[in-house]
Amino acid sequence: MSRFETILTEAQDGILTITLNRPDRLNAFTPQMMKELIAAFDEADADDAVRAVIMTGAGRAYCAGADLGAGGATFDYAKRPDRLEQGSPVREDGSVDYSHPGVRDGGGRLALRIFNSNKPVIGAINGPAVGIGVTMTLPFDFRLASEAARFGFVFARRGIVPEAASSWFLPRLVGISQALDWCYSARVFDAAEALKGGLVRSLHAPEDLIPAARALAHALTDHSAPVSVALTRQMMWRMLGAEHPMLAHRLDSRGIWSRGQSGDAREGVQSFLDKREATFPDRVSADFPDFGDLLHDPDYR
Amino acid sequence: MSRFETILTEAQDGILTITLNRPDRLNAFTPQMMKELIAAFDEADADDAVRAVIMTGAGRAYCAGADLGAGGATFDYAKRPDRLEQGSPVREDGSVDYSHPGVRDGGGRLALRIFNSNKPVIGAINGPAVGIGVTMTLPFDFRLASEAARFGFVFARRGIVPEAASSWFLPRLVGISQALDWCYSARVFDAAEALKGGLVRSLHAPEDLIPAARALAHALTDHSAPVSVALTRQMMWRMLGAEHPMLAHRLDSRGIWSRGQSGDAREGVQSFLDKREATFPDRVSADFPDFGDLLHDPDYR
Amino acid sequence: MSRFETILTEAQDGILTITLNRPDRLNAFTPQMMKELIAAFDEADADDAVRAVIMTGAGRAYCAGADLGAGGATFDYAKRPDRLEQGSPVREDGSVDYSHPGVRDGGGRLALRIFNSNKPVIGAINGPAVGIGVTMTLPFDFRLASEAARFGFVFARRGIVPEAASSWFLPRLVGISQALDWCYSARVFDAAEALKGGLVRSLHAPEDLIPAARALAHALTDHSAPVSVALTRQMMWRMLGAEHPMLAHRLDSRGIWSRGQSGDAREGVQSFLDKREATFPDRVSADFPDFGDLLHDPDYR
Repeated sequence: MSRFETILTEAQDGILTITLNRPDRLNAFTPQMMKELIAAFDEADADDAVRAVIMTGAGRAYCAGADLGAGGATFDYAKRPDRLEQGSPVREDGSVDYSHPGVRDGGGRLALRIFNSNKPVIGAINGPAVGIGVTMTLPFDFRLASEAARFGFVFARRGIVPEAASSWFLPRLVGISQALDWCYSARVFDAAEALKGGLVRSLHAPEDLIPAARALAHALTDHSAPVSVALTRQMMWRMLGAEHPMLAHRLDSRGIWSRGQSGDAREGVQSFLDKREATFPDRVSADFPDFGDLLHDPDYR
Repeated sequence: MSRFETILTEAQDGILTITLNRPDRLNAFTPQMMKELIAAFDEADADDAVRAVIMTGAGRAYCAGADLGAGGATFDYAKRPDRLEQGSPVREDGSVDYSHPGVRDGGGRLALRIFNSNKPVIGAINGPAVGIGVTMTLPFDFRLASEAARFGFVFARRGIVPEAASSWFLPRLVGISQALDWCYSARVFDAAEALKGGLVRSLHAPEDLIPAARALAHALTDHSAPVSVALTRQMMWRMLGAEHPMLAHRLDSRGIWSRGQSGDAREGVQSFLDKREATFPDRVSADFPDFGDLLHDPDYR
Repeated sequence: MSRFETILTEAQDGILTITLNRPDRLNAFTPQMMKELIAAFDEADADDAVRAVIMTGAGRAYCAGADLGAGGATFDYAKRPDRLEQGSPVREDGSVDYSHPGVRDGGGRLALRIFNSNKPVIGAINGPAVGIGVTMTLPFDFRLASEAARFGFVFARRGIVPEAASSWFLPRLVGISQALDWCYSARVFDAAEALKGGLVRSLHAPEDLIPAARALAHALTDHSAPVSVALTRQMMWRMLGAEHPMLAHRLDSRGIWSRGQSGDAREGVQSFLDKREATFPDRVSADFPDFGDLLHDPDYR
């Protein structure tokens, strides 16, 4: 894997572990961290040796949220040169072109990249996860937490709004009432409440967290065809918002047609009939079928 | 607040309490009550002193449903002059113009108004909530119930259908199977079943119900910026039905951009860094950002 | 009812029981079984004496999945003449016309038919339900299970993908994380896990399963107007994916308008006022209102 400055990546035994690595800043989120995380997910998808991704944090925090080093101007993006690499969305007359990429929320760019991951993503939330620290975890498939973890959708106490597309993800994960409770009050809550509210899957002693995440990654992928897993991820997350089951029928009809004639399907059925473990020949990087516009994302505008 | 005939309104300590007030009719719902409730929500949104809304009922019921004073003709709207203020949707040839406002279900008009509230809405369900009495509560953010409350989606026993857009709300709140169980059987069930099924958040002794609702209202709003709370409400409820997280990304990118340069954001971040309580300067009535068509409702047709 | 070869149908006391009946093949799914099940649901909808449908399996299994008699070529539909009655979707140049009906997944055709049922559908899952054996149950309104039941979304171990539009149904029924867990791992799990995960409503001793399903069918329909129940089913399932509650408001406004002037509504209200059991005059086959394009399904393409 590439070298990054704000994150660590380690691939071992089919699992890529991405560690947020600004421990002296409680792994606070920066534009650079966003870019590095997106690059790490790009590399994970391109590397057939990676079967699953684990996300965790270095030191005592998972991620304390946006780096507030700019103080009260932190979210005043029109005044932050580091946010305006693609030029300013503010027109000469002072009006704003909201379709300009400079308006795009960085947390949302990351969340949409994770949404599109071809590999299962498991969060190992080792400590406080606040603001973008928690909203970045919502497109993960699973969130495991240390008993020392804490959570906060603190946006309303900072005078801003929930970001990272969390208004789409959070009500679907925990229900609209629970989502509104956490986002209106903007309070920090503990791991037990996160478990009770359905935000996390399980709690673990700090030293057991990464082993539990690794065991889950293996249970999810060891016996399954990688292309099947990638397609399952694409289909389930996208159909979660789809209007009508016909859209799923179009998608999975193509999926069964395409994968049904693959080496994976021949091996999958034959190994079952032979009562032996399967050895799947196909690779995500080469054998992901063409679904045309069925898996197309809308553009930012 | 205005004076109404079928409801009471009382503003105190940042909370507007709306009380359905036809206790001799078990607060049965009428076209007039619908209009007065819509007007009360309009006033709540326009009044920056109101931070949250509580809905409850006078006497022993919350709301027994549509007033059945017209007997078997109650739901035969073509024959009810009080339903045809905007003219009749029945054409000369006897066919029906379903896009005519006279066809519009009154419960749905109320439900859509509550859906668009800028203030958190808490139900304090003090007694029986049946028919429109329960479906009007589905767009509330939270439903707290007295142990004396009962509930019934009784439409199929009256020969009609679930209304007030409840086919959109109810399956999202309690799951499709639970929604169908209650609506097919059309039976009346008690507060414990409502809690178990996820319809209500908590049960309370009758005398503790309003205090619990008020305590919740304060916990949700006391430390949060009013404009942030209003935007959170708009975003979460709308994105609950959105096809793709890109829609939320468009919305919250604008939200962060607009609110990030506000006085609320400067105060929110600075007060956090100063470890003091924030005093947010902005007001919902004046500072709600322009989201163009992103928060536009489809028309009735 | 018609005679079928792969299923049994028995109508008794207002309940149509459909039994998958290839017990020597663990009721494995075939194209013929798909057609017969669709025909049975067509007949159930056309027969006003049928108030609810129960689905179960003969012998020790519910349904072991696709019949694997074709071995490793089972899912290679381009090579299976029994799949190509409507011609081949493969063009002369070898490219595939994905909009061709020959591409359509058979499980999805069945799932969409059940989605459109006008009668409540209850699964009595008597034994293993694997692959299409479980995904066909997702559009059921309720799944009751024998303690002997087992479940498996085994597609990723066969090298294919979840089908029968399950990517739309499953995350809505059990949440996205639980859906991904079962579909990535593709493992077989027991009835207790299915109950805990929200896939089934209740567990029963084998001999109590059909009686429990019949008791539920009666509780759901005995006191309710058949046309109201049919409309409730159509509205709730469709609105589960709808973008905005305005769509439900359009639908239920027409529903209240149309049914409000029906004999069912007059009897429903009058019997309530008289405190007597209702006798509803209307029939699903004759009195289902015209909703125009509001209940229109998208086409396969």
